[in-house]
Amino acid sequence: MKTSIIAVGTELLFGQTVNTNASFLSDKLNHMGFDVMYHFVVGDNPERLRAKIREAFADTDLILLTGGLGPTQDDLTKEIVAEEMGAELYLDEQALEDLKAFFDKRGRYMAENNLKQAYLPVGCTPLYNASGTAPGFALEKDGKIAICFPGPPREMKWLWENGARAYLEGFMDKKMFYRVIRTIGIGESDLEMLLMPLIDGQTDPTIATYAKEGECTLRVASQRDTMEEAEAAVREMTDKVTELAGEYIYSYDDEELNEVVVRILKEKHLTVASAESATAGMFASRIADVPGASEVMHSSFVTYSNESKIRNVGVPAETIEKYGVVSPETAVAMAAGARAAAGADIGVSVTGYAGPEADPGHNAGEAYIGYAFGDNTGFYAVNTSRSMRKWNRNYFMLRMLRAVYLLIK
Amino acid sequence: MKTSIIAVGTELLFGQTVNTNASFLSDKLNHMGFDVMYHFVVGDNPERLRAKIREAFADTDLILLTGGLGPTQDDLTKEIVAEEMGAELYLDEQALEDLKAFFDKRGRYMAENNLKQAYLPVGCTPLYNASGTAPGFALEKDGKIAICFPGPPREMKWLWENGARAYLEGFMDKKMFYRVIRTIGIGESDLEMLLMPLIDGQTDPTIATYAKEGECTLRVASQRDTMEEAEAAVREMTDKVTELAGEYIYSYDDEELNEVVVRILKEKHLTVASAESATAGMFASRIADVPGASEVMHSSFVTYSNESKIRNVGVPAETIEKYGVVSPETAVAMAAGARAAAGADIGVSVTGYAGPEADPGHNAGEAYIGYAFGDNTGFYAVNTSRSMRKWNRNYFMLRMLRAVYLLIK
Repeated sequence: MKTSIIAVGTELLFGQTVNTNASFLSDKLNHMGFDVMYHFVVGDNPERLRAKIREAFADTDLILLTGGLGPTQDDLTKEIVAEEMGAELYLDEQALEDLKAFFDKRGRYMAENNLKQAYLPVGCTPLYNASGTAPGFALEKDGKIAICFPGPPREMKWLWENGARAYLEGFMDKKMFYRVIRTIGIGESDLEMLLMPLIDGQTDPTIATYAKEGECTLRVASQRDTMEEAEAAVREMTDKVTELAGEYIYSYDDEELNEVVVRILKEKHLTVASAESATAGMFASRIADVPGASEVMHSSFVTYSNESKIRNVGVPAETIEKYGVVSPETAVAMAAGARAAAGADIGVSVTGYAGPEADPGHNAGEAYIGYAFGDNTGFYAVNTSRSMRKWNRNYFMLRMLRAVYLLIK
Repeated sequence: MKTSIIAVGTELLFGQTVNTNASFLSDKLNHMGFDVMYHFVVGDNPERLRAKIREAFADTDLILLTGGLGPTQDDLTKEIVAEEMGAELYLDEQALEDLKAFFDKRGRYMAENNLKQAYLPVGCTPLYNASGTAPGFALEKDGKIAICFPGPPREMKWLWENGARAYLEGFMDKKMFYRVIRTIGIGESDLEMLLMPLIDGQTDPTIATYAKEGECTLRVASQRDTMEEAEAAVREMTDKVTELAGEYIYSYDDEELNEVVVRILKEKHLTVASAESATAGMFASRIADVPGASEVMHSSFVTYSNESKIRNVGVPAETIEKYGVVSPETAVAMAAGARAAAGADIGVSVTGYAGPEADPGHNAGEAYIGYAFGDNTGFYAVNTSRSMRKWNRNYFMLRMLRAVYLLIK
């Protein structure tokens, strides 16, 4: 079905807010097989909104609108959509009850103008909103459909998951199942090459790859007559993907690598400590992003200078002298030293050149990731061949996470 | 002047890319006094692009287009814009030279299809592109103006700064000067209250506040007949702002706080070390974001557990027992301990509850920032009253940066 997305809000036209709602909905709609043809952004102006709704309905059949459902006089999306589709508004009792409950729960007085939000177009499918005050709705008339969402991304996403998606699934001939598989340690083009026998000529399930700073995500999707068939097809394809690329996969459920690492460390009652040069605390900070991280990390070390590597995590001065500070030997000594200084089970380290500059004979993007776990010590050599400091530091941090993941998985 | 922004690119309609170009340009245009009325996104489809250009020109006079200037057959923005505005294309010699130089410099072979990028509409103002291969251009006809930019945000911004802005300034009756002042340690509404005597009833210069995770930015802008007058008006208003809110200001030139801190540390030949509990390395990592940070930070400590605070930065066990681990006394001991363990000039620390949970008698968002510099030791008490882990950690990190800034400024 041909689809348009219209965002209503002057703050978007001022450039104060980025239209992430349109990206979110486009991604979801494309995955369901809807054909998104246009995005529009228009201010809180009834005549211009009306004109864009007409333009969108001129060559698309489904419009998703975000924003303009609030309690103020400026919020006119619902009114204009109802008018354009020839529907009156009625006071929806459930919406009114929700609204009252929302204010009661917070011990707040409900201003008169909030009542406006409990009105919905006659004949619509209400999308009641437990994440805010404004309900959304879907309205179908003469083969044209409009779905209205509140503007705040959190509320829009909540209504998508709790009503809008199911409503749109009713317009799909087939049932769709998909799985998001996450990998690290292989570039997008190499991963595509590896999976070429599966991707080539494949129509269902489909396999799509998405690159994301140093990581690569795979989406395996199937549309079949029943959900069981779709699930079975995705499961079978996932097995084939695992056979070819299993060593790079760290999640079959779209988890973040730091979440996976903290989860496994907790399960296995293990602790980790880092000694970080180029990343300077990014690894430790990423571990601490996950609630409850204090169970698995007690201390870590930012060892930027040579002296700090010697003094704070006990790297032998001779190691640095003999092999250089950016070397496998120094990386391993840092990992073992961090483990000892923190009294942790696992030590992990990085020493390298974040860029834009590097010492003579080296290049920005060169690094060594060291690890130490029981008798198992070793290193990974990394070379991004990039001079972008931020990109390199993020990539080194991901490779540290991967090193730990491979030790404990 | 009424303005539309049209982004061309199927990747936007797939939801793979967020349309940050539209926000960037909207922000800049609004600040220059242009009235942005619509954003459109359309795929790489000539007929639909043509239709949207016509719709945009129907009630706006200026269109900024991004994307679709590349070398492939899909890239048709230039061709459609030229057709719609009745201009032929010609081979631009400067563009051709730039293109050849681009490939020569990289030792790469220039494929035949790249030549396409050196063609421009007759009568346009070329916007030569030193940041990529595709030049942009501005084309005016019968009171309508189209400006085309390449899609990659880096190139689009480069062309904005190096040509497009100056071109559009020609359409402004007045000259504009503005300054972006950055503050930390005060919320947006408090800052507005503080500056109310200046903001109230003020038409030129204007003062606008923007909140950004834990920080607040002020934009002071003036439009006058000459640039000298505009600059003088902004300077005068900046002095008044400084009188009222000077203690919160850390940059008059839109610098990031970590950049300011690293710059001053370098100038004063000082080094800093952190002991981080809730932020777990974010402060150190933010310092290391700035190239050359190794001059000002040699080591830092992630001291998540009580034992780590005792073992790695020498906090007396009695201090933690007597005052609690989240206390001013522990924060100060951590800062002094980090300084000693790192042999640095300045120590800074945080101990607090990132959330979502906190120990009994405390709440998420409560933290103490400790500092030690010469004989000057002390702390800041922070309480965000929020339970959002990411928000709190980021805010604590900013307050650590601010603590260092106040010591050295």
